[in-house]
Amino acid sequence: MIVVLKNPVSESKREELIAWLRSKQLQVHLSEGHYHTVLGLVGDTSRIDTDMLEGLEIVEKVQRISEPFKKANRKFHEDDTVITVGNTQIGGSGFALMAGPCSVESREQLTEVAFAVQKAGATVLRGGAFKPRTSPYAFQGLRGDGIDLLQEAKKETGLPIVTEIMNAEHLPLFENVDIIQVGARNMQNFELLKELGHTDKPILLKRGLANTVSELLMSAEYIMAGGNENAILCERGIRTFETCTRNTLDLSAVAVLKELSHLPVIVDPSHATGVAKYVKPMALAAVAAGADGLMIEVHNDPAHALCDGPQSLTPEQFAELAVSIRKVREALV
Amino acid sequence: MIVVLKNPVSESKREELIAWLRSKQLQVHLSEGHYHTVLGLVGDTSRIDTDMLEGLEIVEKVQRISEPFKKANRKFHEDDTVITVGNTQIGGSGFALMAGPCSVESREQLTEVAFAVQKAGATVLRGGAFKPRTSPYAFQGLRGDGIDLLQEAKKETGLPIVTEIMNAEHLPLFENVDIIQVGARNMQNFELLKELGHTDKPILLKRGLANTVSELLMSAEYIMAGGNENAILCERGIRTFETCTRNTLDLSAVAVLKELSHLPVIVDPSHATGVAKYVKPMALAAVAAGADGLMIEVHNDPAHALCDGPQSLTPEQFAELAVSIRKVREALV
Amino acid sequence: MIVVLKNPVSESKREELIAWLRSKQLQVHLSEGHYHTVLGLVGDTSRIDTDMLEGLEIVEKVQRISEPFKKANRKFHEDDTVITVGNTQIGGSGFALMAGPCSVESREQLTEVAFAVQKAGATVLRGGAFKPRTSPYAFQGLRGDGIDLLQEAKKETGLPIVTEIMNAEHLPLFENVDIIQVGARNMQNFELLKELGHTDKPILLKRGLANTVSELLMSAEYIMAGGNENAILCERGIRTFETCTRNTLDLSAVAVLKELSHLPVIVDPSHATGVAKYVKPMALAAVAAGADGLMIEVHNDPAHALCDGPQSLTPEQFAELAVSIRKVREALV
Amino acid sequence: MIVVLKNPVSESKREELIAWLRSKQLQVHLSEGHYHTVLGLVGDTSRIDTDMLEGLEIVEKVQRISEPFKKANRKFHEDDTVITVGNTQIGGSGFALMAGPCSVESREQLTEVAFAVQKAGATVLRGGAFKPRTSPYAFQGLRGDGIDLLQEAKKETGLPIVTEIMNAEHLPLFENVDIIQVGARNMQNFELLKELGHTDKPILLKRGLANTVSELLMSAEYIMAGGNENAILCERGIRTFETCTRNTLDLSAVAVLKELSHLPVIVDPSHATGVAKYVKPMALAAVAAGADGLMIEVHNDPAHALCDGPQSLTPEQFAELAVSIRKVREALV
Repeated sequence: MIVVLKNPVSESKREELIAWLRSKQLQVHLSEGHYHTVLGLVGDTSRIDTDMLEGLEIVEKVQRISEPFKKANRKFHEDDTVITVGNTQIGGSGFALMAGPCSVESREQLTEVAFAVQKAGATVLRGGAFKPRTSPYAFQGLRGDGIDLLQEAKKETGLPIVTEIMNAEHLPLFENVDIIQVGARNMQNFELLKELGHTDKPILLKRGLANTVSELLMSAEYIMAGGNENAILCERGIRTFETCTRNTLDLSAVAVLKELSHLPVIVDPSHATGVAKYVKPMALAAVAAGADGLMIEVHNDPAHALCDGPQSLTPEQFAELAVSIRKVREALV
Repeated sequence: MIVVLKNPVSESKREELIAWLRSKQLQVHLSEGHYHTVLGLVGDTSRIDTDMLEGLEIVEKVQRISEPFKKANRKFHEDDTVITVGNTQIGGSGFALMAGPCSVESREQLTEVAFAVQKAGATVLRGGAFKPRTSPYAFQGLRGDGIDLLQEAKKETGLPIVTEIMNAEHLPLFENVDIIQVGARNMQNFELLKELGHTDKPILLKRGLANTVSELLMSAEYIMAGGNENAILCERGIRTFETCTRNTLDLSAVAVLKELSHLPVIVDPSHATGVAKYVKPMALAAVAAGADGLMIEVHNDPAHALCDGPQSLTPEQFAELAVSIRKVREALV
Repeated sequence: MIVVLKNPVSESKREELIAWLRSKQLQVHLSEGHYHTVLGLVGDTSRIDTDMLEGLEIVEKVQRISEPFKKANRKFHEDDTVITVGNTQIGGSGFALMAGPCSVESREQLTEVAFAVQKAGATVLRGGAFKPRTSPYAFQGLRGDGIDLLQEAKKETGLPIVTEIMNAEHLPLFENVDIIQVGARNMQNFELLKELGHTDKPILLKRGLANTVSELLMSAEYIMAGGNENAILCERGIRTFETCTRNTLDLSAVAVLKELSHLPVIVDPSHATGVAKYVKPMALAAVAAGADGLMIEVHNDPAHALCDGPQSLTPEQFAELAVSIRKVREALV
Repeated sequence: MIVVLKNPVSESKREELIAWLRSKQLQVHLSEGHYHTVLGLVGDTSRIDTDMLEGLEIVEKVQRISEPFKKANRKFHEDDTVITVGNTQIGGSGFALMAGPCSVESREQLTEVAFAVQKAGATVLRGGAFKPRTSPYAFQGLRGDGIDLLQEAKKETGLPIVTEIMNAEHLPLFENVDIIQVGARNMQNFELLKELGHTDKPILLKRGLANTVSELLMSAEYIMAGGNENAILCERGIRTFETCTRNTLDLSAVAVLKELSHLPVIVDPSHATGVAKYVKPMALAAVAAGADGLMIEVHNDPAHALCDGPQSLTPEQFAELAVSIRKVREALV
């Protein structure tokens, strides 16, 4: 950690600060320049609050050199984390193909889609029971009933299921859910993350619309700090000035996350683009960028979906996509 | 609402859609062009789900002409909403000056700041008890104890208090809190908003870092739809590519919000800029832009604040700012 | 085009407007609602200035339904444009692999890199002679001498060359350049675009850091409106809040551009990411997203490049990438 | 400047780098940590190319502590730069009120507006002769004829004039123009900036839509490095995800620019918001934020302006605004 002091700085205040830093078991290296005095801190700086340091009257700025995340950091955990749900491995050499409807609407709808995506090669069934909607007047999901329907579909197909949680109080309903999803809008709902850190369920953590890669890792750190190391990261598009797609899918983030962290990284091209015809190219691009899995919306009747219809593939389109995914994955070996 | 149909479109499907729209009590006006067929819908389109319409196979795009928010909409509620807490009126001709420390740290700290800001003209005492922090290893606030300290300061000074909630389960702790704040990261925590809609407390709703003015109004609508019409909107900076300030304070949003909605709009220049020296110019700019109030961080010893120190004013700086605020407000009459 | 009128609106002004629009050979369809009156315009609206219409006192807003670009529009030119330089075809089923150093530095450097990338499969040699640099104190390129060196390398290898122009006055120097590049910062230097529209050279137009897909197409339209239909579009990252890569590579833009336009679309992952280790995954992702080509920085000694070194591949890394590109392309067939 | 080395690092390469840095007259301070080795450079680092340093194989990252701009830097030029045009002083205690039509359209239009804004208190007449337009099919301005009309209006009113240049070849036409404007889209047209650096005209440099405060200062540095120290900075809104105003006016940038630089800073609320009704609150907010001037669009008949009409004030609205500006300025003393 680098601490740049204001100039001129009173020598006594500077010495006071250095003494305090040394009391924290840090080595302090001093460089005096004409315009700036710089302290280089060596040792475990993770417990030093950069905000507090910057608040000191004599400090101009503070720059971290080490990343502030630890449990999610590949530097301290070189091997890929591999998370097993059902017969699927997420991370390492495994590839997770999660598919299903945006919202669970009915038994018929869900079963039909579940069998269709399973046949095409999906390894996890997705479906929204609790739906975060911008408008209070829009359909909010079947909630508990939706989870019941997912469990039935799981029994029938054997596919593990993933669905979104919006409130820690609903946790008992998720007992038989295989992967709990935290949506983009809740990525920094720290109270929820803490609760999930006390479970042992795999948590699929979606990147917030305006959150950096570093903040995504810090939110994973909240879950892991609680004892639950089964975090799965998900890139699903960020908010930019461009409006030709709903969000801007940031595939570089996949490469960066794979480098910085050992956690699995999957991509959701359906929500990112918001347009069915762009799902295939972006899904294949995500695979080529090194993603450990995909989450794709599939609907048996996109034209009548209760929500987010425009971005859903038909089962036929999904089956075709699944073939292309396999081919691209083979090309990458 | 305008519905643009794909071209060519089957006449039977088009007629089916028109019939369905008419069954929703809407008038439908048809314009056929060479490249597009357009339906103009007249009537109450608020219950029409644009997502669903766009999902229809024959639809190319849907454009709303009316705003999707109702209770927060000035078109249906011309007069400014005025919210009274203690002796202060927020909205209308009133001006709310909220001030206090970022985090509540101790009885001494809080009391000292509370008396200082009151003397300078603050009308509401702010202070964080529950603190949303990016890192799980950072100070998370005094939580319940912080709220106790705020209530003591309220008793001593008579100032109403505002503090942030992060979890609906904590609501009982907020019984004697005058204004409940929802932080930027929870602006779209819809489960929390719904719960707050069932209370009768004024809710200070901060704009999310990547949320539009329209989404802020929709989140206020969640609170109001539950029966609680005491929403206060707060602009606190959005995330952009610029890094010279922590966030980019969007003061145009004040002018836009005042036009679109009857709800009071306040501004938080402390979090937006993250730098004490920019708080004064931005506070005055917010006043000139038409804000109904300000939320300012003040600390008795900014150099040792446990969090967010760099953006806090000293009581002396705050007193000076309060004088300038009054002068600018008078100049605007 | 949809014109929404303010409400209430004077009938005489409305009739005046309708008469004027009809005088422009447009059909006008009128829908009157309780809150809004809407005019639907049918016909060739391309010459109608939306700004002027919005400026009319009785108009609330104007929404275009058709795209404002024509010559670049796939609706009016269904087949892919294919541009031939040397033995390479850009667009259609061809794939252009452009590679070379960021800056031309010396004859030795350029020749060595040129032969190396040719051997690995590059079809176009890139190299910067005129360099746009943020700082006036930074190396500005070898300018005219750089172009001379590129021409020598072209003679030796037979590879066509692409290099950036920053000033229309330099056009005579580009006589033997095969593809003229317009950099991101000049994407809306309309005076330059107009001049290039009067040449017959292929123009590689890079997307500006804050420009939309639609604006990129409008800038291509400037070139094409002048008579030069040989425009090549290039996605090279946009500016967002994320800082872990230099810019955010927007690969969805590739899919959108391929749909909206018949022009070839290439991707520059080197400048977008700014980091050599992310170039390979992003290059492969671009191929999977449907790009018609790539532009890759290669340096014989990245550790000593005079500019932009950190994002350059070694010739060995490039050769390995070229093999992977071929494999992914084959997987997509 | 701080140079962080990779770990582990070969001692010989490290010593080679240190020797090279010392040959550049820099003092080098070495701190060795468990995870990183850090070099602190003291001395004039302005000629060190950070890109080149980062390109070295043994370097992990480089962080500048000093700003890369010099002539525009307040650290080396404490007093405000004051630029005099006609009877107006821009910078220091002066306040420049620039007003006029977006586009020069005719002698009658320009003269009428010029006399009206002069009467209301404007000190500089603005008007576009060369117009940068997104579409090649839109009105491009009266060009040379527009400049002639501006000069006539200058003769009649005595007001100095400001108008935009788009091409260095047009410089002879600007001989009698008092302030040459560089538009947002040309902020990084470095060839144009260099040419303007060789003139002695005041240059009004608008911030690019996606450019940082630091890049704006570097572009001013291009002008100043050429010998022309009469640069005026202009904030006119940046591009963000928010669409309720055309751009997001970044008023914090005013406070930051005034701190970092001695150059005058003005604000253009007309283009930033794109909506006439938001011009007044944003103009007053800019004054309160400390701007040295404003640039406001005024049209004698906004409803028929050929371009950008929606954001223009009537002369009556402008006169009213001018009164409020004076009041707010007095309140700030």
